[in-house]
Amino acid sequence: MSITLADVEAAAERIRGQAVETPLIESPALNERLGRRVLIKPETLQRVGAFKFRGAYNRLVQLTPEERTRGVVAFSSGNHAQGVALAAKLLGIPAVIVMPDDAPSVKVEGTRGYGAEIRFYNRLTGKTREEISAEIAAERGAVVVPAFDDPHIAAGQGTVGLEMVRQAQARGDTLGTVIAPISGGGLLAGIATAVKALSPQTAIVGVEPAGYDDTLQSLQKGERVTVKPGAPSLCDALQSPFPGEITFPVMLKTVADVATVTDAEVTEAMRYAFSVLKLVVEPGGATGLAALLAGKVQPYGEGATGLVLSGGNVDPDLFARVIRGEL
Amino acid sequence: MSITLADVEAAAERIRGQAVETPLIESPALNERLGRRVLIKPETLQRVGAFKFRGAYNRLVQLTPEERTRGVVAFSSGNHAQGVALAAKLLGIPAVIVMPDDAPSVKVEGTRGYGAEIRFYNRLTGKTREEISAEIAAERGAVVVPAFDDPHIAAGQGTVGLEMVRQAQARGDTLGTVIAPISGGGLLAGIATAVKALSPQTAIVGVEPAGYDDTLQSLQKGERVTVKPGAPSLCDALQSPFPGEITFPVMLKTVADVATVTDAEVTEAMRYAFSVLKLVVEPGGATGLAALLAGKVQPYGEGATGLVLSGGNVDPDLFARVIRGEL
Repeated sequence: MSITLADVEAAAERIRGQAVETPLIESPALNERLGRRVLIKPETLQRVGAFKFRGAYNRLVQLTPEERTRGVVAFSSGNHAQGVALAAKLLGIPAVIVMPDDAPSVKVEGTRGYGAEIRFYNRLTGKTREEISAEIAAERGAVVVPAFDDPHIAAGQGTVGLEMVRQAQARGDTLGTVIAPISGGGLLAGIATAVKALSPQTAIVGVEPAGYDDTLQSLQKGERVTVKPGAPSLCDALQSPFPGEITFPVMLKTVADVATVTDAEVTEAMRYAFSVLKLVVEPGGATGLAALLAGKVQPYGEGATGLVLSGGNVDPDLFARVIRGEL
Repeated sequence: MSITLADVEAAAERIRGQAVETPLIESPALNERLGRRVLIKPETLQRVGAFKFRGAYNRLVQLTPEERTRGVVAFSSGNHAQGVALAAKLLGIPAVIVMPDDAPSVKVEGTRGYGAEIRFYNRLTGKTREEISAEIAAERGAVVVPAFDDPHIAAGQGTVGLEMVRQAQARGDTLGTVIAPISGGGLLAGIATAVKALSPQTAIVGVEPAGYDDTLQSLQKGERVTVKPGAPSLCDALQSPFPGEITFPVMLKTVADVATVTDAEVTEAMRYAFSVLKLVVEPGGATGLAALLAGKVQPYGEGATGLVLSGGNVDPDLFARVIRGEL
């Protein structure tokens, strides 16, 4: 089961008027700093502050009336949680979200604010989030909404790439490279599907945080590799220990390179986004910018570099420490 | 001497390719909170992090070759300073900037970073900034570039309004109200000139910080009023004690209402911009949002509310204190 451009285009139709069509913006200061033109896709400006609303809405709007009555269950550190919670609220569907007990409180509060019921779990002990979700699904007959390993979710996230290509074209630009973060690969596989279909010469580059380079290792090995979970990382949103069963084959076919960034590179990028771009970006959302600022992504081909800033849900205290240079 | 739509359109031609055409963005969460549609113009994403680059470039690019050689001098708490400094750098013009000794260090560093020479003054004692600037101008034969009371400056700032009307039209929207902050009135007079010419039914609303409601008082009295300088305010960018000689008559003809906001309302708006909009906004830049969140601006006529977030140059320490709720 793979996804196609037609799936992404259908998703774009379904989310129209619900998701924000985020702009494609350019910073002359960033261009000058990098010596290359960068077209920024700030999904920080998306509903719930991250691209995740796109996939969640695309999945939930396709549930049958009977499925909608029984509700949905999802597990997530916070952005998928909020995406599912808001989509469920808009569609009148009950939602239970299984969240790690160390999820950023801004994400917990956001999820609760959209009316979802929250169940906490511990990342390292007790039942896994998959087990808890399966139990809830069994009890209630609820549909499990995966964070990435679902063709409708990945197709929804792919609308980011569809918009990037079309917005670049409307400006008279082409994209030599598109950079986006990888957790389970829903965003990158979705983007790659759309971008490669519309602009085959564009190189797709993923970025993972240090300690979670499962996709890089998997691509090198040609099969899905699981990394040891629990490595410390500021990137709460990117801690999937393996690429998805559906997303990995897409990435294997389309991804030109994967960069890995450290926490120090990520906080440097968050400070740059604050002080120069004037954008609030969470750690995981800043990984692409971090890779660029650290010189870890070469420019491929002709044309501008498309950069996805995937989310901006960061606790005020963490953000304050980062911009003060304490982290 | 007044300004016309043709002046603003000419300014738009001059700054094309130099200034950023900032997008018009919409936040469903803000719309829901206010019960009205708001189209946000984030001039935080402009070069130098504030709209001021528009007017400065429009003024400097019109200097004669001989004037360019002698250089320019400007006084500003920081955003006009950076706008003039960058425009001067791009055009190869020497620039001296007279800044208050309590200007935010992010603005001082920015101005210095663009290669301008800085002279400090004290807001309350010693020579005024006007006197110091006049001396430098006399010594060097430099051209003084006013922050607001200049038709080319105001016309340049007016391109914000021109873009807002056109971008709203391109989305199929009309603007019932446009809200922007007032210091000396260059931005608001420029915006009003463009907006009223293209969309006469749109109401123009200004916002001033408490203690600096000189424009409100002037409009009520029908003549320019000077307020006592030195009132404490977080809005370093909006501390002009009087409206401009050129900008005031424009505002008198066009402005429907002026709201006044407190520091507490401003910090609340900055927190909202951080946590919901994911935008970094400085105190003065957040006054329009503050007025909306505080219910101080009624919706006029049909159509959406256009909101200018005019700048995002804020020291990390101040921003950290605001988002932590310490201010």
